[in-house]
Amino acid sequence: MNGYSVAVVGATGAVGTKIIKMLENAAFPIKEVRLLSSKRSAGKKLVFKDTEIEVQETTEDSFSGIDIALFSAGGDISKKFAPEAVKHGAIVIDNTSAYRMDPEVPLVVPEVNPEALEKHSGIIANPNCSTIQMVAALHPIRKAFGLDRVIVSTYQAVSGAGNSALKEMYDQAQQMMDDKPYEANILPAGGDKKHFPIAFNALPQIDVFDEKGYTKEEWKMTNETKKIMGDDAIKLSATCVRIPVAYGHSESVYIEVKDTTASVEKIRDILRKAPGVTLEDDPSEQMYPTALTAENKKDVFVGRIRKDLDDEAGYHMWIVSDNLLKGAAWNTVQIAEKMHELNLIQPLSNK
Amino acid sequence: MNGYSVAVVGATGAVGTKIIKMLENAAFPIKEVRLLSSKRSAGKKLVFKDTEIEVQETTEDSFSGIDIALFSAGGDISKKFAPEAVKHGAIVIDNTSAYRMDPEVPLVVPEVNPEALEKHSGIIANPNCSTIQMVAALHPIRKAFGLDRVIVSTYQAVSGAGNSALKEMYDQAQQMMDDKPYEANILPAGGDKKHFPIAFNALPQIDVFDEKGYTKEEWKMTNETKKIMGDDAIKLSATCVRIPVAYGHSESVYIEVKDTTASVEKIRDILRKAPGVTLEDDPSEQMYPTALTAENKKDVFVGRIRKDLDDEAGYHMWIVSDNLLKGAAWNTVQIAEKMHELNLIQPLSNK
Repeated sequence: MNGYSVAVVGATGAVGTKIIKMLENAAFPIKEVRLLSSKRSAGKKLVFKDTEIEVQETTEDSFSGIDIALFSAGGDISKKFAPEAVKHGAIVIDNTSAYRMDPEVPLVVPEVNPEALEKHSGIIANPNCSTIQMVAALHPIRKAFGLDRVIVSTYQAVSGAGNSALKEMYDQAQQMMDDKPYEANILPAGGDKKHFPIAFNALPQIDVFDEKGYTKEEWKMTNETKKIMGDDAIKLSATCVRIPVAYGHSESVYIEVKDTTASVEKIRDILRKAPGVTLEDDPSEQMYPTALTAENKKDVFVGRIRKDLDDEAGYHMWIVSDNLLKGAAWNTVQIAEKMHELNLIQPLSNK
Repeated sequence: MNGYSVAVVGATGAVGTKIIKMLENAAFPIKEVRLLSSKRSAGKKLVFKDTEIEVQETTEDSFSGIDIALFSAGGDISKKFAPEAVKHGAIVIDNTSAYRMDPEVPLVVPEVNPEALEKHSGIIANPNCSTIQMVAALHPIRKAFGLDRVIVSTYQAVSGAGNSALKEMYDQAQQMMDDKPYEANILPAGGDKKHFPIAFNALPQIDVFDEKGYTKEEWKMTNETKKIMGDDAIKLSATCVRIPVAYGHSESVYIEVKDTTASVEKIRDILRKAPGVTLEDDPSEQMYPTALTAENKKDVFVGRIRKDLDDEAGYHMWIVSDNLLKGAAWNTVQIAEKMHELNLIQPLSNK
């Protein structure tokens, strides 16, 4: 075998460009990288390992000869083209919400549930950014002490809403600082009726509301965590908030464990050894993770672990990760790495 | 009586200037406003009701003839000069943490525990900003349904750390956007060893850490809430986080009530009628409070009230208020108003 042919759908987007970067160091051989986008972005040139590649418009015929197709161009594009890619024999790893809750589709964080990759129908789903970093940190704690309950409040970066939202935040920040009029056209949710400024603000809405007053982002954290951990009994409520940070989601997480022999020191020891997790936790040295220090790093960072004052099973912690890397591009490429490692991808050229 | 003589200590600071603004519309007569500051700021001129007033250095003799002294210049200044002001016959309303937990000193949010004002030894303490807005919103709910437990994650504005921190945030933001080097010299805590940038970041540290891994700000929320509500049995854990917002603290608050006949609609009804609280809660219209919309307003704003998915006594909500107004200057002046209303201030000129 001389490597896989890999397609990146949504190659010019905030996540797509990071996927290309992650592919440069992927732990599997790559024969070809095919960059796909909307008609509007087709023709642009992007660099993969010092080679310029022209971006092509995504069509039904784009997937001929492709072994692995990494989708990150919105749910509608995934619904339209992922089945085409599968028909052509590709493994699809989809970074949108289109297939995440489909019972036929594995929803995978490689450190947590790699075994779910064994059984699929061509499509693997990459979880939501805010879910990934939380379950990566909580899984080792759950393995050791069990996990009854999670209450999480998020501090989410604007890049999660794409490059245009990022540009809008910077424009608003500049205009506010210059005391000039500013506009809001994108956040809190591209598809919603009203838009509010994010610069120097905090918006307690990510994605649209359901009839119970929760947002889709909040439901994603609840439902995806249960699916990834394979445990419907876990109690989990989320409050998802967008803040004026470019890259890196932070999460204030309260948990209740089942085994009350747990302790802050034991949790720290477990996270110190956990794959994909870096412990940054020493209050006496003001050591804790922040969005800026997590930027461009693949790991999930955990700090501020402390015993709840009122519940012997309760702990608080602060979980931070680059939402475009572990929260999106890196977890996507990591799924492909894991499937390669487990011999779950048959290159078409060998078939 | 032709009005009180009012001193503002720390008149040139972020809170002091707001106190002067609040005094312009105070519901009690004012004969004289005396503006006091450090030696460094003395000589500056500030405007009260279209009249320029020269700021004087605070000394032991500054309080002669003063009826009400409003302190907001840091705990050390309060400890040094508040007893002097009391000796001169003034009522001190102190906006620092110096006296808050002193059992002799009432700690007051006028909508919550005005009765505590009846018994004092000359000093009244204004609670911490993040505490005030939370208890103002939770008190009416507690009255109706009881309150067992609170878990709060804060999204706190930079102005809470003073004008110099605000300037540093704007400087950092400009430098980051211009891709220039930036410095951090103030946050997370003026008196601590290390400093981190706040622009486009979230810092999970406000004030210094104790040996249990909580910050002083987090302890303030716990201890002050118990004192104001007069209930040591309330369980309360906080995670206090600074975010790049200029004015307006936001709080993601989870509560458990005692009376499970509560409902989202009943809680909304109660908050609709609560003094000092404005309900902004309609997910179908994307209505919820934000820091930018709460800026320069006196009220505490509440939205995103929803039932917890896993606990029949549990509710989540989003509480926002201008940290310099209800969180500081307005609550301070409001305490003076309430004391005037309750006939608790004897003007020296009448004695």
